[in-house]
Amino acid sequence: MKRLLLVLVISCAPTAGPSGPHRAPEWISETKPYGTASAGSGPSGAAAAATASVPSPAAASAIAERYRGAVDKIVTAAHADREAYRKLSYLTDRIGNRLSGSAALGHAIAWAAQAMKEDGHDVHTETVMVPHWVRGVEAAEITAPISRSLHVLGLGGTIATPKAGITAPVVVVHDWAELDARRDAVKGAIVLYDVAMPKWSEDKGSGYGQTVEYRGRGASRAARHGAVAVLVRSVTAHSLRTPHTGAMNYEDGVEKIPALAVTVEDSTLIARLAAQGPVTVHLRADDQMLPDAESANVIGELRGRERPDEIVVISGHIDSWDVGQGAHDDGAGAVTMMQALTTIRKLGLQPRRTIRVVLFTNEENGLRGGRAYAKDHAAELPSTVLAVESDSGGFAPRGFSVQTKPEVRDRVKARVADIAALLRLISATRVTAGHGGADIEPMGPAGVPMVGLDTDGRTYFDIHHTEADTLDKVDPQALADDVAAVAALAYVVADMPERVDAP
Amino acid sequence: MKRLLLVLVISCAPTAGPSGPHRAPEWISETKPYGTASAGSGPSGAAAAATASVPSPAAASAIAERYRGAVDKIVTAAHADREAYRKLSYLTDRIGNRLSGSAALGHAIAWAAQAMKEDGHDVHTETVMVPHWVRGVEAAEITAPISRSLHVLGLGGTIATPKAGITAPVVVVHDWAELDARRDAVKGAIVLYDVAMPKWSEDKGSGYGQTVEYRGRGASRAARHGAVAVLVRSVTAHSLRTPHTGAMNYEDGVEKIPALAVTVEDSTLIARLAAQGPVTVHLRADDQMLPDAESANVIGELRGRERPDEIVVISGHIDSWDVGQGAHDDGAGAVTMMQALTTIRKLGLQPRRTIRVVLFTNEENGLRGGRAYAKDHAAELPSTVLAVESDSGGFAPRGFSVQTKPEVRDRVKARVADIAALLRLISATRVTAGHGGADIEPMGPAGVPMVGLDTDGRTYFDIHHTEADTLDKVDPQALADDVAAVAALAYVVADMPERVDAP
Repeated sequence: MKRLLLVLVISCAPTAGPSGPHRAPEWISETKPYGTASAGSGPSGAAAAATASVPSPAAASAIAERYRGAVDKIVTAAHADREAYRKLSYLTDRIGNRLSGSAALGHAIAWAAQAMKEDGHDVHTETVMVPHWVRGVEAAEITAPISRSLHVLGLGGTIATPKAGITAPVVVVHDWAELDARRDAVKGAIVLYDVAMPKWSEDKGSGYGQTVEYRGRGASRAARHGAVAVLVRSVTAHSLRTPHTGAMNYEDGVEKIPALAVTVEDSTLIARLAAQGPVTVHLRADDQMLPDAESANVIGELRGRERPDEIVVISGHIDSWDVGQGAHDDGAGAVTMMQALTTIRKLGLQPRRTIRVVLFTNEENGLRGGRAYAKDHAAELPSTVLAVESDSGGFAPRGFSVQTKPEVRDRVKARVADIAALLRLISATRVTAGHGGADIEPMGPAGVPMVGLDTDGRTYFDIHHTEADTLDKVDPQALADDVAAVAALAYVVADMPERVDAP
Repeated sequence: MKRLLLVLVISCAPTAGPSGPHRAPEWISETKPYGTASAGSGPSGAAAAATASVPSPAAASAIAERYRGAVDKIVTAAHADREAYRKLSYLTDRIGNRLSGSAALGHAIAWAAQAMKEDGHDVHTETVMVPHWVRGVEAAEITAPISRSLHVLGLGGTIATPKAGITAPVVVVHDWAELDARRDAVKGAIVLYDVAMPKWSEDKGSGYGQTVEYRGRGASRAARHGAVAVLVRSVTAHSLRTPHTGAMNYEDGVEKIPALAVTVEDSTLIARLAAQGPVTVHLRADDQMLPDAESANVIGELRGRERPDEIVVISGHIDSWDVGQGAHDDGAGAVTMMQALTTIRKLGLQPRRTIRVVLFTNEENGLRGGRAYAKDHAAELPSTVLAVESDSGGFAPRGFSVQTKPEVRDRVKARVADIAALLRLISATRVTAGHGGADIEPMGPAGVPMVGLDTDGRTYFDIHHTEADTLDKVDPQALADDVAAVAALAYVVADMPERVDAP
């Protein structure tokens, strides 16, 4: 249960573990503790702690000598190509958002499989049963001391309110300690977690990890004290009264209560009013959880010329939340991988090992795709030399974050850094110790080295899980450069004589 | 009619006149043409063109010598005071938004009058009849080639659609020329003005002026070609799928058609789809215009000790749009003026002339308050030595923009610059030639010199006329410094021996 909880809480926030109790899987051991902001990379962790590891000159020159030509070809081709953006346009503008269980997700899966086939790859899908949560009508308003409507979005997985809704006094808290301290007042009340997300900074990243735990665990923690519902301040440092949704998790054995996100504007309004006197809120939601639905991971391959059974997985997730278009989260990651493989194939490059695109289903509210893949492909994991994921938005690439077992960390980082050193044209040279990706994490315990594409995520959490995660926020050049970075990394790791984690 | 049009279009955009035909009232003549981006100041015009006028050394030292002590006292007191923010909290959190004709506007007027009385001022209200437009249920969706809901807000004053709504093909245009060029396609269609607002820049300001004309005049221009409705891309350079509303204007003799704003996200989506093939949109709105309602300007005074009949007006507007809280537009301006007068009174300062706070009603959708004041107080205008307005948001003050008849411009600017030079502590030393304010503009033809409070408006048009114009966006220190700037200017102009426009 604890592992599932971790997975749900960090879903779509690759580098931002809960800031409370240390929750690192025991097979991870980095210099900086995993899950803290300073250890991360990408939008939440930034360049922070982990500086690029310095490759040994011999290794650097070996990779550089051997692959500079191929990487230059890949980068030049990908940098000039707009096909990833065209694919993303179809996925977002024509198909739209695609929550697990929705018809749109099925449409997206069929489209992705077809598109990869048309690009010449070996393609198949692998069935996965996924949760089927459906958003209903949701509404909330302050009824005392003023009358004011609130902008809300139910958190994914929330139960419905009774038909007439819930009307109750609000208890505003700013952290777990305050929740516990006010446990007597919480009984019968709606708890509002008015927890402010810090602004993005170069050294600390986004601060998502410090705040998202209230979204993930707030309902059950409040229910233990007898709360009747929770409102959670949207996890963003920059709001235009746009609520954010995302996964939440009910603890076993604790009563389930409705959980809705409110905007920063509305959360702070309630908090200001509550500082002056009692506040009452009415809320209703007829969200519902249906029986699991059939879905699938989509797999497309370029078979290796010498060691086809050794595999480099490059991945994103094809599902999204049910608002906006899921453009950055994670349409961008999905098309990046599709186009990376196509770029390599179009250049007539066939590496020694197999490169496999995996578009996972159900990252957002279950991680069923990632867990099914690790389970169903358990026999292949020892020969899976690397798993790469892009799930930090399709912003300009900055480099890679590397997550491995401690005993291979330095050499994997060194080799990834050698490859990244060839990516100066697209400024993707930064290599840090950090998170790989939520979908590939289930492969970690089997020893598969993992790499996350590290992007310029300064604005990611402005739009994350909102109506504003739309194609207009994606820069076609940045997306093309993501393709370049992933294609170069995947090609070199798939082709070089030694495994990336070899001694 | 032309003048009214100007007033509606620029309402709440003090420095941003239409970028098309030159529309400056003939009594304005600045070095740079009025109404162009480079001539403005504040959020839309920025420091741009007009550099601080250099006062003659003699004049500078006269004002500095005489008033440095008083200004230091005023600035020190206002800078440390949080009462403006407390007033704004009540106005926004307790009363909320306040469109002309709404009960909330009546409540706000009563509250403001009472608050000024409690602060010791002479207070009265002056009845003004205002338009009473009421927003109904508004909705829109793309029905072909995909099915997708749109986020819309009816523009203020729009007529309703037929009850069943309007379903029609969309013609996307990016400027007036394209509208005219496609006139045959426009007949029977919904016109979408997908006009992008440029990003704010230090030298050009906001670019609001270049784009807002499509909101103001788009309906009638399209109706002349037979369009059945218009959609207008929200006038902002930064969207989180938050639609912006604002005034629009129907031309006499042209058929009225419904006019709704769509978000940047939705506008660009329609434009992308339309570039590939036909797009159909369904929209409905049951907005309505009721008979004019009674409202009032609120007036509070500190009577002058020597020349009480000579008046310095300091003003903002008490009404707002009907979304969000009207915090920056223009709750901030209103409380700035209330607190500026209170600061002067509390310090025991009684200037030579009268300082009069005027909180205008109906700036947003009619300017009835401003026009009624100029008409009803016509006899006083020759002895109104200055009119000051704050309607560019309650951001940190940068200085003042001065708008006068050409023959007094240099001397008014020089004196305002002398006063601003005393405001280094709050960095409000910049004096430019620009707009005074929409509400005070009707006093201009009578020769009243006008000054706008110039603020750091980089983010103003992110929230302008939206659900996101809320108290959390207001920095209490910035607001206090606005009070300081206005109180200092008003006190010195009211007290100095000569009129601010004297030879």
